[in-house]
Formats: sequence, C-alpha cells, structure tokens
Amino acid sequence: MEIKVLKDILSANDQIAQKNRALLENKQVFTINIMSSPGAGKTSLILETIRKLKNKVSMGVIEGDISSTIDAEKVKREKVPVLQINTGGECHLEAVMVNRALDNLPLDDIGLLFIENVGNLVCPGEFKLGEDRKVLILSVPEGDDKIYKYPLLFHLADAVVINKIDLLPYTKFDLEGFSLALKGINQKARLFQVSCTTHEGIEDWTDWVLSSMQRRKRTSRKKS
Amino acid sequence: MEIKVLKDILSANDQIAQKNRALLENKQVFTINIMSSPGAGKTSLILETIRKLKNKVSMGVIEGDISSTIDAEKVKREKVPVLQINTGGECHLEAVMVNRALDNLPLDDIGLLFIENVGNLVCPGEFKLGEDRKVLILSVPEGDDKIYKYPLLFHLADAVVINKIDLLPYTKFDLEGFSLALKGINQKARLFQVSCTTHEGIEDWTDWVLSSMQRRKRTSRKKS
Repeated sequence: MEIKVLKDILSANDQIAQKNRALLENKQVFTINIMSSPGAGKTSLILETIRKLKNKVSMGVIEGDISSTIDAEKVKREKVPVLQINTGGECHLEAVMVNRALDNLPLDDIGLLFIENVGNLVCPGEFKLGEDRKVLILSVPEGDDKIYKYPLLFHLADAVVINKIDLLPYTKFDLEGFSLALKGINQKARLFQVSCTTHEGIEDWTDWVLSSMQRRKRTSRKKS
Repeated sequence: MEIKVLKDILSANDQIAQKNRALLENKQVFTINIMSSPGAGKTSLILETIRKLKNKVSMGVIEGDISSTIDAEKVKREKVPVLQINTGGECHLEAVMVNRALDNLPLDDIGLLFIENVGNLVCPGEFKLGEDRKVLILSVPEGDDKIYKYPLLFHLADAVVINKIDLLPYTKFDLEGFSLALKGINQKARLFQVSCTTHEGIEDWTDWVLSSMQRRKRTSRKKS
C-alpha cells in the first residue's frame, strides 16, 4: 500500500474518532476497545464482566466481526444492548463503523461500553475509535513470544489481560519473562491474569474497570 | 480503504505472484503458504515437517513477521536455508516481498519451500504469493467458531490443520461440528488433526505434503 494512501486513511479515521469521543464524553459513556488474536477470549471476557458488574453499571457492547452474529447473540442473552458490525472483509474496526453503531445504541442508558474489535493482533492498533481505554488480551496457548512479533498493540495497550491461565500447566508460557518484556515496551500497562473458564482473576480485572471509570467521574452520574 | 485502491493493490500483487510462480516452477520448487492466527503453530508445524522429511526432501523456509527474527532462528537451528521478512507493520505477506526473498534463497537446492505468513486470519487470504498450496492452521484453544467469523481463509485453503489436539480435553472444541462446517464452505480441503507437542498426526500431514509434491512430479527430480 502506498504510504500516502495509508496516511490519508488514518487521518480521516482520526477525525471521526474525535467525533465519537466527543459524543461519548457528552453522553458520559466510558468506552473500552478490546483487541486480541482470534479466539483469545474477547467475547468471554466481556461476558464475564457483564455478569460481574451488571448490578453496578449499565453496559452496552459493539461487536466487530468479518461476518456472523455469533458473539452478538451471546451478549444479547445477557440482556445488554448490543450492536453487531460486520466489516465484510476489513480486518479491523474503523471509527466510521463505530460512529454508525453509536447512532443505533441507547447511549443515555449506557455507562460502560465495550467495543470488541475484529480478531487481529496487527491492524486494530492503527485505528482509533474514540475509546477511553485500549485493552489487549493475550491467551496462554498463543505463547509468550507474541510481544516480540506484534509489538505495536502491546505498546499501545492501557491494560494487557492474559487469558486462559487454566491452560498454563499444559503449555510453556513464561509469565515472568512476558511480564518483564511488557515492562520493556510499555511501562504504564496494567497486567491481569485471568481464566474466563474458572473465573480466576476476573475480580482484579473488573476492579480496574470500575476504578478507571471512577477516575473519569462518570459512574456515579449514570447509575443511581 | 477506497475499493478502487484495494483493487489496484491486489491486481499489482497478482502480477508479481505470477512471476514468483513462474520462477518456482522453473526451479521445480513446490511451495506451501502457511497461514493462521498468531500462536496457532505455524513455525511448530514447519519444524515438525523439517524433522520428519529432512532425509527425503531438501527444504527451505521464508519467515514472515511484523518484526523479530525469533522464528527464523528456530528454523536455522535445523540447518535449513531460511530467510526472514519483517513487514514492518503490514499484516500479511505480499508477492513483492516474497519475490525479493526468492532472489536470496538457493532455489536450485530447494525442493519444498514453506512460506510462513504473518499471523492473521484475515488479510493473508487476499494476497497470492505464487504458492502451489495454501494451508490454514487452526489451533484447538482458538475455538471451533472461527470458521464462521473468518470464512475466507477456510474457503481458500487446500488443507486445514487442526493443531494442539493435545488440549482437546481442556476445551469445548467440537471436532465433528467443525468438520461439517468446513465441508459446507470448502469441499476440497483436506483436514488434519495434529499436535506439534505430542507429534500425534504429523505423519498424516507429511504424507499429504509428499503426495502433493509427487503429483507435481517435482520430488524425484530434486532429491536423488
């Protein structure tokens, strides 16, 4: 791809992302963009969070996928407003897709919005959506070397969630080595270890979500 | 991205892919493009194949990554010619990158060439490289629903390798359901079940690699 074309696309995207951000701030919606490889557990972490926080915060979800509505249907069963974006081939969400989705969500009733990006460790990092936080999930079976091969997303993340820690005994994942590598390229990122199967570590994660929201002083006004 | 821009890029790519193909046919090199999500086991499958076939076929490897030379170093230890491509941000290999790599590999001494694509279930499908076969690896922990969410690569694959079957007891992966879904969108694809950890199923896979090569009548001329 011509570098100029890419720059134009990113610059146009950033402008719409700023519009999204203004709308979300105005509506007092705290927004988390969740990114990972396919199958690392984005939907599972969102579902776990919904179950844990549903009595504390009103939530909404935007589901991004190339095709299918499998994930949106799972979220719908939790009785949370959800909107599916099918990118039809694009390997990441762009701000304009989120903009259209926001028009169709009941933002006045949502305090915490999750945007589940397309499963991809590369391109989603380049496209701002208007989010408050970027969260990256890495699952144990993917291996601890992913931080060296796909550094951009690890560098940008506000939090990194290691999922499927119940599979640690069956793999060679080096938690300590990974933690050191992460500190090397991103000193601010919080690191969580969870299993969406055994529910281990979920509370640490949801505590961080809540405290991040509170720092933006939005929770109290949204939920009585 | 403008659709016209994408079309131009793909058309330019296809022309270079045809050049690669002509060169590889001329040099009698059978070429397999290996694609998967990050961490599904592309390098592991290549290493297993090298160990199994090293007395039967002369091999070479092109490693594609955003950054790092971790995988190329692993292949080098097997004493096989290897070339690392760092895409520097691009989420897939393009024919022009492979073209440059081919110039720097001893093609006269290679009968079987693996091209390990960037870990991504989306974009690599759109870019032909000049390969004889496209192989897609899906690892058990990613889940059996990936075929619905990322259908293009499953549709294009000549073979689908389910890796990490040693983790089947710890996940909800539905092998039968996946096999049916695959038949639904791709009737020609061969399906393999392997574990690069326990070595289960590797021989079925390498048998297919050898018989695919033999059908191209290249093996016999390359290895005495």
